[in-house]
Amino acid sequence: MSANETPASHQPPAATRDSAFLRACRREPVPHTPVWFMRQAGRSLPEYRKVREGIGMLDSCMRPDLVTEITLQPVRRHGVDAAIYFSDIVVPLKAIGVDLDIKPGVGPVVEQPVRSRADLARLRDLTPEDVPYVTEAIGRLTSELGPTPLIGFAGAPFTLASYLVEGGPSRTYENAKAMMYGDPELWADLLDRLAGITAAFLKVQIEAGASAVQLFDSWAGALAPADYRRSVLPASAKVFEAVAGYGVPRIHFGVGTGELLGLMGEAGADVVGVDWRVPLDEAARRVGPGKALQGNLDPTVLFAPREAVEAKTREVLDSAAGLEGHVFNLGHGVMPATDPDALTRLVEYVHTRTAR
Amino acid sequence: MSANETPASHQPPAATRDSAFLRACRREPVPHTPVWFMRQAGRSLPEYRKVREGIGMLDSCMRPDLVTEITLQPVRRHGVDAAIYFSDIVVPLKAIGVDLDIKPGVGPVVEQPVRSRADLARLRDLTPEDVPYVTEAIGRLTSELGPTPLIGFAGAPFTLASYLVEGGPSRTYENAKAMMYGDPELWADLLDRLAGITAAFLKVQIEAGASAVQLFDSWAGALAPADYRRSVLPASAKVFEAVAGYGVPRIHFGVGTGELLGLMGEAGADVVGVDWRVPLDEAARRVGPGKALQGNLDPTVLFAPREAVEAKTREVLDSAAGLEGHVFNLGHGVMPATDPDALTRLVEYVHTRTAR
Repeated sequence: MSANETPASHQPPAATRDSAFLRACRREPVPHTPVWFMRQAGRSLPEYRKVREGIGMLDSCMRPDLVTEITLQPVRRHGVDAAIYFSDIVVPLKAIGVDLDIKPGVGPVVEQPVRSRADLARLRDLTPEDVPYVTEAIGRLTSELGPTPLIGFAGAPFTLASYLVEGGPSRTYENAKAMMYGDPELWADLLDRLAGITAAFLKVQIEAGASAVQLFDSWAGALAPADYRRSVLPASAKVFEAVAGYGVPRIHFGVGTGELLGLMGEAGADVVGVDWRVPLDEAARRVGPGKALQGNLDPTVLFAPREAVEAKTREVLDSAAGLEGHVFNLGHGVMPATDPDALTRLVEYVHTRTAR
Repeated sequence: MSANETPASHQPPAATRDSAFLRACRREPVPHTPVWFMRQAGRSLPEYRKVREGIGMLDSCMRPDLVTEITLQPVRRHGVDAAIYFSDIVVPLKAIGVDLDIKPGVGPVVEQPVRSRADLARLRDLTPEDVPYVTEAIGRLTSELGPTPLIGFAGAPFTLASYLVEGGPSRTYENAKAMMYGDPELWADLLDRLAGITAAFLKVQIEAGASAVQLFDSWAGALAPADYRRSVLPASAKVFEAVAGYGVPRIHFGVGTGELLGLMGEAGADVVGVDWRVPLDEAARRVGPGKALQGNLDPTVLFAPREAVEAKTREVLDSAAGLEGHVFNLGHGVMPATDPDALTRLVEYVHTRTAR
């Protein structure tokens, strides 16, 4: 099978294909604007904190029972239009043997940062056998979810590289950028290798039953457009190209990427995610025709009273009025202190307000 | 004297007025593109770390001898075209009695965050008598600096409010935004009060001899344009209007403000600072005619080899070719681990490459 043939066996059932979420991704008419939230499965939910009690983040990502439960929680509670597979962007790196951990209150920490060509050898290819829990959890999920689509996800090569090179979270990415500017060949080889791993990880999810995928380039917004185009886009494009044949919608998101929206679409996305800084009509102008948009309520709005949330939501919906396809989301992940009831009300509000 | 009359006594001497920096700010022809660096006075310099040894940040800001020495250090070492007054954006708040401190490795921490109308009473007006060390240090500086201009500075109302409402540094500004969305009147009153304090602080600096001012709205980039226009711009405009009569160039900068550049110009800036994410020619399109631009080399580029620094510097200069006025700077502050020699070489490179 060539990469560009559609493997019919991986098509989702008709009811899923016809869901508001997948229709919006394909820019088809929808009964209402579909809604899901980045980090909808996570710390804002008491039922999540309960099942995670005493279990490390990476351990929880490798337990199909927990992944299934956590992924389903926001679907049950909020009635969102899509589930997103519960995982972390460093899971595929852990799966191929990179010595890393997710430290509470810190984030992913890599024992030995990648700084030289010799370090690349530690990044071997990923096979489905490396992540059996993914296949198992997605099998369970698709049967439990019924027609609700499941979004698979992975971190993009730049964002993974930023953790690997810095050795942990960073606000400046000074080591990663020093490599990008100072040793462009090593940098390109690192990103190309990460693209292969990311593509393989997304393929596992699609073949197990995910009916859309989102590539998170969380920190790409730290890059100037010329640097993104030259040093990052080729690797992200390789990921999207590798999964093009499955025909599932491919979403691409990063925070603070106002200047990169056009390039992130060019990389091969069907849906471009937008943070709250760029109004959706302006984002559509930058992305150009032929792509849906996802976004973009400021997640901090949810700390304001209900009337303020509704007013800001109307602003988002108004700016989305002319879009070819719109998936409502926050402009970044749900913040841990968010009141879950505010999220439930928001789903209802968008559904009611956009019912056709 | 009305606010819009030019008090001739505060005009800098002719040699200063004719400096490359002030000429570029006024969009007049220059012998070379002037260069200075945000945070040029600070942790990247060993001579700075030496004089600061054992002295807290706020204490050092209140000692005219130290302020003078620290402000001069980068001028001596790098030959930059302007000095920037060494201070911290919370100094005027401390001066009016707000109980705050700058904790090493953390940032400004406010003992009792501002959350209610009653809390506003703690923010009284600032008078020159509250900051005698500023007047004294600037007096010393202008005589030591000779024709090199001194830039005064202050934090903008939004950024000050973010510290006051959050109680410290934040990545999300959830409390500040909750007030902005949920209690717009209290928010507007808070920002208006901060605008008065900021304007008074800038006036002290100008009257003591600063020949330009920069308003740092460091965190404004967290706001969507509609929110900035409605809830922040009026206060920043009040600050700029209050110092308009002095005729000194007014610079306005925040990081991640690509979507706000036009509005930050509209607020009353003569020079709009641009971070590295937006190429300067695109920034000029957003800001419109009649304003100079400042920026915008990615500060992390300085961790790369010399050839890479020069190549990226040429990209900045090329994108600035059509500007009415250009002040070369980094797109954010100098990072602490930066090699000072790389900064000195960068000043020389820009001067040589742009010599007319």
